[in-house]
Order: sequence, then C-alpha cells, then structure tokens
Amino acid sequence: MKGTLFILGMGPGDPELVTKKAGRILNSLSFIAYFCKKGEMGHARQIATPFLIHELTELRFEYPLTTEIPHYAPEYKETLETFYDHCAYKIQKKLDEGQDIGLLCEGDPLLYGSAIYILERLQEQYTIETIPGVMAMNGCWSRLHLPIVRNDQTLTILSATLPLDKLLVKLNQCESIVIMKIGRNLAKVKTALKQTHLLEQATYIERGTQNQERILPLSQMQDEKAPYFSLILIAGKEN
Amino acid sequence: MKGTLFILGMGPGDPELVTKKAGRILNSLSFIAYFCKKGEMGHARQIATPFLIHELTELRFEYPLTTEIPHYAPEYKETLETFYDHCAYKIQKKLDEGQDIGLLCEGDPLLYGSAIYILERLQEQYTIETIPGVMAMNGCWSRLHLPIVRNDQTLTILSATLPLDKLLVKLNQCESIVIMKIGRNLAKVKTALKQTHLLEQATYIERGTQNQERILPLSQMQDEKAPYFSLILIAGKEN
Repeated sequence: MKGTLFILGMGPGDPELVTKKAGRILNSLSFIAYFCKKGEMGHARQIATPFLIHELTELRFEYPLTTEIPHYAPEYKETLETFYDHCAYKIQKKLDEGQDIGLLCEGDPLLYGSAIYILERLQEQYTIETIPGVMAMNGCWSRLHLPIVRNDQTLTILSATLPLDKLLVKLNQCESIVIMKIGRNLAKVKTALKQTHLLEQATYIERGTQNQERILPLSQMQDEKAPYFSLILIAGKEN
Repeated sequence: MKGTLFILGMGPGDPELVTKKAGRILNSLSFIAYFCKKGEMGHARQIATPFLIHELTELRFEYPLTTEIPHYAPEYKETLETFYDHCAYKIQKKLDEGQDIGLLCEGDPLLYGSAIYILERLQEQYTIETIPGVMAMNGCWSRLHLPIVRNDQTLTILSATLPLDKLLVKLNQCESIVIMKIGRNLAKVKTALKQTHLLEQATYIERGTQNQERILPLSQMQDEKAPYFSLILIAGKEN
C-alpha cells in the first residue's frame, strides 16, 4: 500500500487560523515536508509548530539560491524545475514505502504555491488530498477591516514579479486589487501605482496576522525592499 | 461595557474547514446572528451546527424578497439598505446591553459578504473583530486539484451579476478566472464564456466541499439556473 500525500494549507500566519481539518491531519502524521529558504525555518513550518505535539520526521526542501538569476532567464526556470524534480522524488520514495506525508504550505496551497509543482509531478500515480487554507490576503483585509469587494465589483490578484509594462496595463483595468510577492519588486510596484494614480489608496501589510505585523499606507513606506510575506491591498471605489 | 461583535468567516461548507479561531470564539458565545433566505436555515448557520454545543440565542436576518426587482433599479438598493439598517439596529441594541455577538458568514466575510454592510454601520462606535475564512473558491479548486495561479499569472474574481457587455470586456482581459454569484445568471455567463472562447476550459462546481457537491465541465451543464452556492473556475494557460 502506497502512502497518501496531504497538501496542507496552513493559513496566513496566526496558528489559530489553521482549519480544524489541517490541524487534525497534522496531528495524525509522523512525517512532514516543507519548503524554506536556506538557513531559515520556513514559514509554513513555523505556523505548524503548535500542532507538532509528537515526534515526527521532517523533510526540508531548501530553495536553490536564484536571487542572482534574472526571473525571465531560462536558467531560472531550469534551476527550479530540477529542484522540484528532486523534491517530488524524495516524497515519492517515502509514499512508495507506505508512508503518509503532510506537505505544509503557507496560505492556500494552490494559489502561487510551490506545492503545485509537486502535485503535478505526482498526481497521476499517488493519492493526494489538498486541504485549502485561509490566504494571506484574507488575513490582511480582515486585520484592516477592509471590505475588498461588494455587489458586482471585480477583484484582481496580481504578482509583483510582472514587468512594469504589464503591471501598468493590468492596473489600468482593475477595481479592487491585491498585489502579492512584493519582496524586491517594491520600487517597481510603487512606480506602477503612482503612474496609475492608485498609490494613495494602497495599503502595505507585512506579516499580516503574525507577531511582527506591520500595516501602513504604501505612500509612507520608505523601505527599499519588502519581505516575501508582504502584500498590497486596494479596495475599489463603490460603483 | 458594550459587547464585542465578532464577524466570523465559516468557510466554504465543510465544518472541518472552519478555523480553530472561529470555532473557539463560536464556542464562547451565547448569542449569534446570521443572514438567510426566507424559510431556509441559512448556509453559515448550517456550517456552524456542530459547534453549537450549548444553548444560545439566535437572531435570524431574512433577506427581503428582491427577485422581482431588477438588480439595477434604485428600489433594489433601497430595499437592501433598509434591511441592513434594520439588522445593524438589532445588533447594536444587543451590543449596548453588553452582549457579545457572533455574526456568522459563509466563506470569508469581507469578499462579497453581507457582513460588510453591518461592519460599515457599526465600526465607528463598537469593537469589532473580523475572523477571515477559507473561501468557497479555495474549497472548490482544492476539490478539483486545480492550481489556479502560478508564477506571474493573474487571478480575476468576477461577479456573475455584471451585465453581459461588462462581462465580455473583463473576460477578454483575464488569465485565471473565478466567477461567483452564478444563480439566475447562468445563461448569461455561458453566453459570455462562449463568445470569449473560454467555455471549454470552464468547470462548474455546486456546493463545493459539502455533501451534495456536484462538479462538471460547464459545457455539459444543462440546468437553466444554478444555486447561489455555485461557482465557475478557469485556470489560465501557463505563460
């Protein structure tokens, strides 16, 4: 009997925002895997800490250092493809031994999640269950008490990794907006929002629902870079 | 001492997809309120059933019958404004008596939720805590194992209540798409997706994560109407 892979959405950061289902499954497992930056604990792993009440085996997948490679270079894609092949292989070996595995993911696994690349590699041959999670944006707009869309408004979720020209085109078509993956793209995003007259309506949130949460109008944000766990929210004007 | 209003996201339908936090708060309350259709239990109330282990007082807010009024008529807006005034007043009275109240909401309260109208009416004078929830779309794309966005893809969330011409403009600009509030707008949405060559990629999901869940390609969906708790998912092509 092969093991089952549980892809677990761990929510935006506050461990209380994990679902009962993800918590129950996590408690039943003796083997977990997760992605993390080199030398860091990993965000999903950190959220899971209060749930790991018994001994278990952990498989850390450290992202390769790709910050030196331009995002659009073929080498970038290749490096990541090789990395995900390696991770899928490691998980596969354990599933073949009959081991159930929990793959921990921040937010919801299927929205910009690394788990997507594992799912795609393994879903034909293995039993996989995906547990959705509260996303970072849900956590953030709740903290702001910001109704993000009502009536027939449209919500657009953008990645800050888009080049400036594409960001500008999209921002001009939007009503309510969430911009994710800010990180090193902060200056570009600010430029784009300024040019589309949206900067003054934008709120910046770092580590929403977590201990070191930071919320401020984006126009007052002076830092040059943002941490990966930051996003920008803009609620569209009422029609 | 005035009471606190807890606006509780109850998730997509499966009671196990409620967060630990919403569950804990719900257990501590002796007074809840929720919106529902006339003669029906109410979706959020139904999800909450397993959590209501002790006696409590329930305040039902039955939506006025607006199906006869065109969505864009001023009368439609007026009827709803009066209704929300009434609901806010009922909640306010209890908060003034020092009663804590849980307002139950399906999905996430601040994405197209009726709680938005209560929040706006009461947030200046009362303490309100909003607990985010897993949204219907999260539940649905997890059930489909559908990676909704990756890399620098854009996700657009549309309301099916938009008129056909606006739907067409927006659909032509989209990559990955979620269409909500299908209900009586099903035929219009199908027309719009056909005209924008998206019909064949669209999946229809009714009561995702719930007992009577129904998933099928939208092109095979023959019904004339859909229940309110249905949505359409389209994952954009990889760039």
